[in-house]
Amino acid sequence: LLGIGDDAAAWHGDTAIQLATVDTLIQDVHFSLDTASWGDVGWRAMAANLSDIAAMGGVPRYALVSLGLPQQTEVEDVTALYQGMLELGQQYGVATVGGDISAAPLLVITITILGSARNQIDYVLTRLTAEPGEQVAVTGQLVASAAGLQMLSRKLQFAPEAAACFRNAFFRPSPRIAEGQFLLDAGVRTAIDISDGLVADMGQVCKASQVGARIDISRVPVHPLVRENFGDKALEMALSGGEDYELLFTDSAEVMDRVKQSAPCPIAVIGEITSENAGEVTLVDAGGKPFELAKAGWEHFA
Amino acid sequence: LLGIGDDAAAWHGDTAIQLATVDTLIQDVHFSLDTASWGDVGWRAMAANLSDIAAMGGVPRYALVSLGLPQQTEVEDVTALYQGMLELGQQYGVATVGGDISAAPLLVITITILGSARNQIDYVLTRLTAEPGEQVAVTGQLVASAAGLQMLSRKLQFAPEAAACFRNAFFRPSPRIAEGQFLLDAGVRTAIDISDGLVADMGQVCKASQVGARIDISRVPVHPLVRENFGDKALEMALSGGEDYELLFTDSAEVMDRVKQSAPCPIAVIGEITSENAGEVTLVDAGGKPFELAKAGWEHFA
Repeated sequence: LLGIGDDAAAWHGDTAIQLATVDTLIQDVHFSLDTASWGDVGWRAMAANLSDIAAMGGVPRYALVSLGLPQQTEVEDVTALYQGMLELGQQYGVATVGGDISAAPLLVITITILGSARNQIDYVLTRLTAEPGEQVAVTGQLVASAAGLQMLSRKLQFAPEAAACFRNAFFRPSPRIAEGQFLLDAGVRTAIDISDGLVADMGQVCKASQVGARIDISRVPVHPLVRENFGDKALEMALSGGEDYELLFTDSAEVMDRVKQSAPCPIAVIGEITSENAGEVTLVDAGGKPFELAKAGWEHFA
Repeated sequence: LLGIGDDAAAWHGDTAIQLATVDTLIQDVHFSLDTASWGDVGWRAMAANLSDIAAMGGVPRYALVSLGLPQQTEVEDVTALYQGMLELGQQYGVATVGGDISAAPLLVITITILGSARNQIDYVLTRLTAEPGEQVAVTGQLVASAAGLQMLSRKLQFAPEAAACFRNAFFRPSPRIAEGQFLLDAGVRTAIDISDGLVADMGQVCKASQVGARIDISRVPVHPLVRENFGDKALEMALSGGEDYELLFTDSAEVMDRVKQSAPCPIAVIGEITSENAGEVTLVDAGGKPFELAKAGWEHFA
């Protein structure tokens, strides 16, 4: 009904379950313009939000964009920022319907995404429903994004293929929108996106569902280029590195078999939900021996 | 269905017109913690957003709050911020259902408000529908907020009653939620909130509706305490000062008579919509002579 240009955006409602998520990226906290282009920043801001909708199994529909821009910002930079944002958003049919712009001492981008459950489905994926005995699985391969961050921040050199892979994973991540909807359709009930790191986000599910989780580190799907280039460090990166935007989910062996048969992406079962150690994640190696992780993931106020 | 703590907030949708607005407040751009308390900042952030819903005649329903907090932030400051936000939000039944918190070099608050039109009403107030011959009116009295800003930034001294009024208007503005809904019910179609200043926001309506506006400066309702304490400057402040969060609206004389009879707040007719000078606001004095304004209102990238 009304997009950008009025006091608020407006559209006709429907009776599907509605979803809303918001995420703020702040210059020199979440990204640096020394390494990221303005288009990269726009893409990543959109990806972080879309991933939250993916983790609910939802359909993203509308975006509101609030920008804080330094006084000396060039128009073409803002255009590039929007292009990065819209390029990704349009892949999923997201319409940018509102927002605001103000002056700021540094670049601040807040995106709100509104979405809904598909086809009048009366539930969504949550963190609340993991149950003892369920399997734990992840989509795709982990940690190329963390490899990208290390490459850029520590100025590491890699062969062109690896460098491009890491850079792309970090700056142009693909949220698992189709996969989230697929999981919902397949009967999965519990999911979270791995934005803060596998162990940290598994911990969120354990706390919300009041269960424990035992993860077999030998089954964690580390991207082969990361394993090749980071050696022994790759596993630790895969356990604690964030922003891969893969989905972590749990369900019964029966549902999991169904998921593995027809999922639109690789699925790796990496562990199980336990009744003991509620709220905690236990890591074990292939032999079942405990494995200690130095740092579980990203915490802003650790 | 799901509030804070999952990847996204979720609720059952309905078929009313849906509204969404977002606004970011940035430390030392929109407020200073030298003069504002954390509670004041929370209140104002909520008020700015609620006012956008008021300007549509809508009912605010859900809030998403995204905070960027400096590392040294005290827990009690964050609590006070939320208290200011929630104190105002709860007056209008707004539920805070989601958000995120991250580290930031300075305090950044983004609030997204989701709302809807009341009672299956099939339209909302917009900026697009002003027509030549309509009257222009505002709710309440203008400019105590701008007086508060001047008082604080220039360290002006006033009698206790005036100082309290200005301070309160600046830090604890009341969005015109009930009044916006009243206008919609009374048949009004065109409205905007005066967040950037009367002339600037009137200009927005003129541009969106492709009409002109002629405002009689002698009819602009300046708050008597501002007139008393700022003398000749009061009028200019009322024309260009922002953040009063009063509503500016237009409609036919017939609708306006109905509005004036039963409005829940003072209504002042201050001018009319014209077909000439489309996109522009013309100021005239009581004798019809043109009046020149030095600065029309707040522009972030002037």
